Amino acid sequence: MGIPRQDRIPARVRSGEKLLPEQARVHNRELLLRMLYREGPHSRADLARRTGLTRVSVSDVVSDLLTDDLVREMGMRAGSRPGKPAMMLGFNEHAYQTVALDLSHSTLYRGAVLDLGGSVVTRRQVEIAGSTGAEAVARVVGLVRELTDEVTAPLLGIGVGTPGIVDLGGVILGAPNLGWQDVNLRSVLTERFACPVVVANDANAAALAERSYGESAPDSLLVRVGVGVGAGLLLGGTPVLGSRFAAGEIGHVVVDSDSDRSCVCGKFGCLETWLSTRRIQEDLSGARTEAEHARVLAVAGEALGRVLAPIVAALNVSEIVLSGPQRVLEGPLAAATTRTIRQRALTEVHGDIVLRLSGLGDDIVLRGATAMVMSQQLGIV
Amino acid sequence: MGIPRQDRIPARVRSGEKLLPEQARVHNRELLLRMLYREGPHSRADLARRTGLTRVSVSDVVSDLLTDDLVREMGMRAGSRPGKPAMMLGFNEHAYQTVALDLSHSTLYRGAVLDLGGSVVTRRQVEIAGSTGAEAVARVVGLVRELTDEVTAPLLGIGVGTPGIVDLGGVILGAPNLGWQDVNLRSVLTERFACPVVVANDANAAALAERSYGESAPDSLLVRVGVGVGAGLLLGGTPVLGSRFAAGEIGHVVVDSDSDRSCVCGKFGCLETWLSTRRIQEDLSGARTEAEHARVLAVAGEALGRVLAPIVAALNVSEIVLSGPQRVLEGPLAAATTRTIRQRALTEVHGDIVLRLSGLGDDIVLRGATAMVMSQQLGIV
Ligand SMILES: [Zn+2]
Ligand SMILES: [Zn+2]
Repeated sequence: MGIPRQDRIPARVRSGEKLLPEQARVHNRELLLRMLYREGPHSRADLARRTGLTRVSVSDVVSDLLTDDLVREMGMRAGSRPGKPAMMLGFNEHAYQTVALDLSHSTLYRGAVLDLGGSVVTRRQVEIAGSTGAEAVARVVGLVRELTDEVTAPLLGIGVGTPGIVDLGGVILGAPNLGWQDVNLRSVLTERFACPVVVANDANAAALAERSYGESAPDSLLVRVGVGVGAGLLLGGTPVLGSRFAAGEIGHVVVDSDSDRSCVCGKFGCLETWLSTRRIQEDLSGARTEAEHARVLAVAGEALGRVLAPIVAALNVSEIVLSGPQRVLEGPLAAATTRTIRQRALTEVHGDIVLRLSGLGDDIVLRGATAMVMSQQLGIV
Repeated sequence: MGIPRQDRIPARVRSGEKLLPEQARVHNRELLLRMLYREGPHSRADLARRTGLTRVSVSDVVSDLLTDDLVREMGMRAGSRPGKPAMMLGFNEHAYQTVALDLSHSTLYRGAVLDLGGSVVTRRQVEIAGSTGAEAVARVVGLVRELTDEVTAPLLGIGVGTPGIVDLGGVILGAPNLGWQDVNLRSVLTERFACPVVVANDANAAALAERSYGESAPDSLLVRVGVGVGAGLLLGGTPVLGSRFAAGEIGHVVVDSDSDRSCVCGKFGCLETWLSTRRIQEDLSGARTEAEHARVLAVAGEALGRVLAPIVAALNVSEIVLSGPQRVLEGPLAAATTRTIRQRALTEVHGDIVLRLSGLGDDIVLRGATAMVMSQQLGIV
């Protein structure tokens, strides 16, 4: 089970300053695999033409990929072109499976086994039941155990999307909702399950999913509404993590410093006090009429718009994607967010901004966690 | 005068996918020049060891650089090391000059001739005197003419930092303070002066200057306060331009939608209505006491903090640099900005943020404009 973890090519080498033969081979492998994954079947000659690699190099790499079963021969190309028909090569979505976890919900830890196409093979979940700290870690480990028992192909790795601030080594620096501080979840899971593990913030995972499986623009801001509120930012297709891995933590930006809405962080009037799923539910439970219901959602949407307006102006992103419970986010909430951003930030030269709900639904973090593992282990996103 | 414009290596090639021999040569030239520019003198052997290039490749490139006078032999290395003494090679800051313009002030267009070390050789300026549109372009052209007459070395190019939104082709899409819309200033100057021209937003130029000549962190947000208010953002050392080149246009973010402070953009309560140099001067002129004076500056600083708080949270930048009139920005204004950001955005896991005034003073945009030309023409920043 599992394949040896490839050491990815460091940035210095990618910039072309010096490419050792072994690094060149890893680079070429990722290049060809990415092309087959993203763009569908190609012949060896197609691959050589597209990449500028020699036929010999292409054949060498393809031979490795066939051995690893990551690529399969799909049959000869159907004939419109002249000349000898060519064997088509295709990415094999069933070569490996991943185990993915989504810890961003308020009552359940959700998990699944997914194939390399991002399709769910099996699901499992476990009640949070108020667990925090070490007890929460134990429940997460138990959920992974259940899922690894269900894996029916070699395991590429485990991906986890969690609320909170996560460093590049998979250490959760702080996740108040889970009672975690400096929890090295990656190392816990690596030791138990002896396979590659990637742990990242849930909003960042969701942003990656939107890019891999959705229709994100290269510059895109995804806002994830769940037990907390966070954002995942892609610029030029690359995630922005921040100087202390806390990029996207917009949930505790104060919207109204005169507000009496108290927040878990100790401040008053944070965005989360209007927009976390729990607070929205509380506010909605007090709404008697359709109009009051819409009003609650519009107030939450306006709070989001007030926080997003300066961000949209500073980054000039063209797209905002909302991810979370659809019946809450769509309608009055999204409309109020869009209206507020337009009123507070946009000038005609900014152009218009698109605000839309993610089409990936409830599995967005699970699919993002899979994309993280594929990115790390195979170099493809 | 002038050297042929080098076609820079496209991103695809930089990623190592395919490097044609001529492209490799350009790449290696930039690599060695960058090393000598940033890190001071090296011997040919040092350069080969540091880059992994062969001695032959290094000698070839160095020979070209000596011919172009961009590099000079500085004498033999003073002796602490064993073995044969080596000829040291150094970057020649006097090989070329640039003409740089700063259009971000409220009463003057400022210009200078600078050497490749970013030092000012000659200054010229012209009164704006209410000029806008074509008349403003004519004054800019006249200023460049005066400066090119003063150039005493081959001209590397002309760099312009201007308020407003500028696309990658040097077209000013909109600069209300100059009455410019869709003005192709780059093409106007290229035709008149037959040399490379780079036009960019003044805050982006300032951010680049701060990185090249100052002490910026790789993730840094520079706020430029002048006739307008804008920001220049570097993430991982790379400028963020936005999907429509309008990144950093924070001056027209609404701070208080109930305000009666009217803005040139037609809205009320924009950041610029508290923070542009003109509005601050107006507000200060009504202050009778020291305390009222400090209060005006603190209110402006708080307005800036309210706009920056969500941006700081979303990006987790570690550093904010203020650039503009020092006697206005330092003291109560900067203190209020810092305090507001801390109150409205930061949690302990964010870490602390550094807010400081740029040490580059009034020449920051001129030096940034020079850095833009050097980046485009020589591949060094
Ligand atoms: Zn809070
Ligand atoms: Zn305005």
